[in-house]
Amino acid sequence: VAVGVDVGGSKILGLVVDPAGEVLARALRATPGSSSPDGGEALGKAIAEVLNDLDGQLSSTAAVGVGLPGLVIGRRRLVYAPHLRSAQGADLASLLAPVLRGRTLVVANDADLAALAEHRAGAACGHSDALVLTLGTGIGSGLIVDGELRVGSGFAGEVGHMVVDVDGPRCPCGARGCWERFASGSGLGRLAREAAMAGRLVSLVDGLGGDPELVRGEDVTTAAAAGDPEACSLLDELGWWLASGIANLVCVLDPSVVVVGGGLAGVTPLFLPAAERHLATLLEASALRPAIELRSAAFGAEAGAVGASIFAREVA
Amino acid sequence: VAVGVDVGGSKILGLVVDPAGEVLARALRATPGSSSPDGGEALGKAIAEVLNDLDGQLSSTAAVGVGLPGLVIGRRRLVYAPHLRSAQGADLASLLAPVLRGRTLVVANDADLAALAEHRAGAACGHSDALVLTLGTGIGSGLIVDGELRVGSGFAGEVGHMVVDVDGPRCPCGARGCWERFASGSGLGRLAREAAMAGRLVSLVDGLGGDPELVRGEDVTTAAAAGDPEACSLLDELGWWLASGIANLVCVLDPSVVVVGGGLAGVTPLFLPAAERHLATLLEASALRPAIELRSAAFGAEAGAVGASIFAREVA
Repeated sequence: VAVGVDVGGSKILGLVVDPAGEVLARALRATPGSSSPDGGEALGKAIAEVLNDLDGQLSSTAAVGVGLPGLVIGRRRLVYAPHLRSAQGADLASLLAPVLRGRTLVVANDADLAALAEHRAGAACGHSDALVLTLGTGIGSGLIVDGELRVGSGFAGEVGHMVVDVDGPRCPCGARGCWERFASGSGLGRLAREAAMAGRLVSLVDGLGGDPELVRGEDVTTAAAAGDPEACSLLDELGWWLASGIANLVCVLDPSVVVVGGGLAGVTPLFLPAAERHLATLLEASALRPAIELRSAAFGAEAGAVGASIFAREVA
Repeated sequence: VAVGVDVGGSKILGLVVDPAGEVLARALRATPGSSSPDGGEALGKAIAEVLNDLDGQLSSTAAVGVGLPGLVIGRRRLVYAPHLRSAQGADLASLLAPVLRGRTLVVANDADLAALAEHRAGAACGHSDALVLTLGTGIGSGLIVDGELRVGSGFAGEVGHMVVDVDGPRCPCGARGCWERFASGSGLGRLAREAAMAGRLVSLVDGLGGDPELVRGEDVTTAAAAGDPEACSLLDELGWWLASGIANLVCVLDPSVVVVGGGLAGVTPLFLPAAERHLATLLEASALRPAIELRSAAFGAEAGAVGASIFAREVA
């Protein structure tokens, strides 16, 4: 067996997973608030509690994998974490040493680990080159190249900050027109509000009392699922933006499959077919090149923790 | 020893290269005109002449590598070649079988092979993750990921068609705002003409008789080398566009070195320092991440043929 821990924005999930993928034990804690920098002490304490909880359920000597929402170097140090500032710079291996009791620890980016799970046991299984996208507030991703998870110097797969529109809207990262301003959960909300302000999404806005600024992405997906034509057309637009960035990534990496998971995973039938259609028109020589499949993720909210357990098993 | 052949837009260069990189024999033929599709017969004949010429100089039983300006599948078939339409679809292994006399043949994209040369024996040597760009009419590229040349399903590394400006100028590929519309030799020409039409590059335009439409990229690099401040400022702009696409590729791949070669390789001192400066401001968390070096290519016009010989030696 192996232990996988995924540190999310609000909670920390720990799993003990056997080689067949069965979850033998589960533990959950709240992610400590990201107030003041503490070298990762609060985070380390919370992860230690998760590990102790799992050990109490099922005493094991298994290796431990941890996924973090940030950029990890050397499989242990969190060097950049805009959504977990208090722990930025933390060396997880040192912080967790007491609770590891000699077990191997490997740390990686959470989206990378979700990609590993999809490749080893999910929707990208059997493909030697795969791209796994996690659409939520932003766009996370992991790259499988020639059968292995690749991280470059450590920061590879930050595809959400690929600029697709140099004159586009500002991104909190400082750049303009990052892909995740368009093709993410929050991107859908932005596209929806802009459409509503421009007089589109009429019946949806009416249903919300007439204020276009109140429109959220979820309102659009709910309306589209119910057949609202204007909402469907906005999801076609989301599909275009998704395809547009995927086309860029296909130029760079040419994977045979692109897996879409994350917060929008539950509603992929509303925009993935459109994205596939747009992708065919956006790619040069698309009739001559090997087909590229767009697929929904096989794993849901536990993708990161499952991937962390797989990473621990493979690397340790 | 190994044989490397590079099929360029105007000529075909063949080399016999020893493991230390020394060129033992050289042969040159004109690339057959790309008039009507002939299944690659004329191309095959010209390559055969190059191989026979080399065999005449130095009889060898070495493996043969061939680089082609297009997209190659299965190390033998040219499936897409917008600049060599007559040979599109050609199966090089069949066409060259008579002249190979049992020698192994491996075929690949020319920019990929130039990247291999830079990684094994040039400016990217020793880096496990490298990106090699060939700036000419367009932007060619090759990816080294974890020490090996990677091609995905076959078409990876076509980074020139990554869209960086969805509302940008049309590209012959059909899309808008492809990176190579800006950060290539022809992109420099376009930026220069637009600047001249807008009343910039005054002394340069005066020197050309006053017609802004006559400005070419070479005029700008010559003027910048002579210290013309407006020309220098335009090359700073080229550096920004180069950095902007490299920033995208760093988000995706995070290499530790980016090598710049091709037609603009001779004038990299005029824009590479600017690109490096802009890259630091474009990358998120650039102070926290491992440094990324921008370097001029070590190989010149023979990069593709040298890379082809290395590929033949490694793969055969």
